[in-house]
Amino acid sequence: MPSDTISFARGAPSLDIVDIDGLRDAATRAFTNDPGGATAYGTSIGYVPLRRWIAEQHDVDEQQVLVTNGSMQADAFLFATLVAAGDAVVVEQPTYDRTLLNLTSLGAAVRMVALQTDGIDTAALREQLAGGLAPALAHIIPNFQNPAGYTLSLAKREELLALAAEHGFTIFEDDPYRHIRFSGESLPTMLSMDESESVVYASSFSKTVCPGIRVGYLVGAPALIAKIQKVATNTYISPNMVAQSIVYEFCASGAIERSIATVKSALAERVAALTQALDDHLPEARYTPPQGGYFMWVQLPEGVSVAALFEAAKERGVAFVKGADFLLEGGDNALRLAYSGVTVDRIDEGIERLADAYRSLSGAAAAA
Amino acid sequence: MPSDTISFARGAPSLDIVDIDGLRDAATRAFTNDPGGATAYGTSIGYVPLRRWIAEQHDVDEQQVLVTNGSMQADAFLFATLVAAGDAVVVEQPTYDRTLLNLTSLGAAVRMVALQTDGIDTAALREQLAGGLAPALAHIIPNFQNPAGYTLSLAKREELLALAAEHGFTIFEDDPYRHIRFSGESLPTMLSMDESESVVYASSFSKTVCPGIRVGYLVGAPALIAKIQKVATNTYISPNMVAQSIVYEFCASGAIERSIATVKSALAERVAALTQALDDHLPEARYTPPQGGYFMWVQLPEGVSVAALFEAAKERGVAFVKGADFLLEGGDNALRLAYSGVTVDRIDEGIERLADAYRSLSGAAAAA
Repeated sequence: MPSDTISFARGAPSLDIVDIDGLRDAATRAFTNDPGGATAYGTSIGYVPLRRWIAEQHDVDEQQVLVTNGSMQADAFLFATLVAAGDAVVVEQPTYDRTLLNLTSLGAAVRMVALQTDGIDTAALREQLAGGLAPALAHIIPNFQNPAGYTLSLAKREELLALAAEHGFTIFEDDPYRHIRFSGESLPTMLSMDESESVVYASSFSKTVCPGIRVGYLVGAPALIAKIQKVATNTYISPNMVAQSIVYEFCASGAIERSIATVKSALAERVAALTQALDDHLPEARYTPPQGGYFMWVQLPEGVSVAALFEAAKERGVAFVKGADFLLEGGDNALRLAYSGVTVDRIDEGIERLADAYRSLSGAAAAA
Repeated sequence: MPSDTISFARGAPSLDIVDIDGLRDAATRAFTNDPGGATAYGTSIGYVPLRRWIAEQHDVDEQQVLVTNGSMQADAFLFATLVAAGDAVVVEQPTYDRTLLNLTSLGAAVRMVALQTDGIDTAALREQLAGGLAPALAHIIPNFQNPAGYTLSLAKREELLALAAEHGFTIFEDDPYRHIRFSGESLPTMLSMDESESVVYASSFSKTVCPGIRVGYLVGAPALIAKIQKVATNTYISPNMVAQSIVYEFCASGAIERSIATVKSALAERVAALTQALDDHLPEARYTPPQGGYFMWVQLPEGVSVAALFEAAKERGVAFVKGADFLLEGGDNALRLAYSGVTVDRIDEGIERLADAYRSLSGAAAAA
């Protein structure tokens, strides 16, 4: 791969939109304001002031919150607690590749339900449930879904909650992108709409503070959180108190609002540049511009091999993730473009390279 | 429990021996010197400069090192990789309660082998191996063992390595206390003496930097580390880069040597005060003064119920962990005193309270 490769592969922010000064200041305050809390073991529920801050954000009781080492770790605890080998688990089609991998590793019977531009196909899910599907869990990424960038509509949020209550499954609302909406109106979380303890909610500070800080959290019914807390204690005694006290100071000082504003404005510019570049250089690409988050799903004409495109793109110095990685089967003509890590001045060049790779494919010529 | 309870229960440092200023400075340097490395995801092997620093300390190749969120997490990964339900695992008798719990939870057939003041009874282990015991793993805490405070002799280190090579089991050398030796001479790690890839080594910065930073590590054969790295990636993508970059700056600047010197001198004073107090107030207590670490194992006369002592002590405002918690059976007249968290000015008072609790027991009167 050329050394100046432009990578649309990783869902991570470029360094220019991380508030390094704010983090440095927050660290200084953490060690000054609460040296004992930052440096001692603490307990597996997480750093108490941060737990309280999160509880206030979601208007829930503190006992409903467990702060973890990143939200992937929260997912792992939740899956270990709620999913046994053989259990049916509903996921979106396509969905986050690591979720797919971890559920498959646990021996779950993964049932993919089509994702539409307004979220999971609830009619199809309803039909499957009527046909006897009895999932332990439905994993839903409601806002700016990874990999598709689509957002679950309010009507579908309501419908999912009704289905969960009726059929007795848990909705795992996996929501790390919620705060980085740059257009359109925010929708309420299913957690906040839930009246039957159907929802377990996860989020993270990876997209609003930085990924290297590895702080995520779960919100759920107190009994479930207490159960997961025991798993957490036995796994690592306590999560990272230094990191969590830094996040707390970052949040309490208001730095997080400035950070979110920076991220949102950069992402909005990048989506605009990305869609413009696709329209200019690769008009065959079909997509729905996301209203927030890091990702855009791109479909190429039927018959185009994205696996071949991947190799041709690599040679030309541009990277992305193949759509097939987010599916159990199919997706051969789709790809995920992550625009979070590519600055505006590189986007057009990256898409030109991608278009050049596309033109080099014999299948593309045939499909065009 | 009275509000001024003196706790010999938790193996954690008191705040006065944590270098808060050094940590604050290290955090400032981390965000200034390597903002990208500190704030990005990184990979599951850990923060690269810290991994390299650890490899140099142990004189091993970097590929042999995996840096984790605390060494408990390293243990969990190692057990998940090497121990299946039904596998025999040798542990010391007594041993760390969480290790016992985690191995039991995994369904391991835990075989406890007596711990002597110079380490595990290798003669007894040899006999059991000759009798057909085929462990997957032997878990050994070589220095200032938790809970006993005893140290494995050089001769026994050699013997264990020979047994491991002969019988094909892995030695898990769990060594978080090594650097906090305050008397006697340091012994080489089994890792450094190993000629047959028998040893996997774990340690942590909890005792030399602070526990809240949650940074531990594994050292082992490259193939094993690569295998565990995959488990780590799927669990949490990457460990805490902010914390690991702070630890790296703390180590690279030499602050860690000053921190270790502070900790050692405080612990030496505390052990002197503790043994003096026991001799003064509770001469019935039998113990071997540790040469390092956090813990001292205390045996009371046969027939004394430490469970009853625990309750009587609680009423009088002094806490410890019952010996039975570190064993599958027995230990009813033993207890663990952790002196790491009690400042010298409180130790005599704590032991006076313990002695008072002891005198209140009818069993103690009978045994005396």
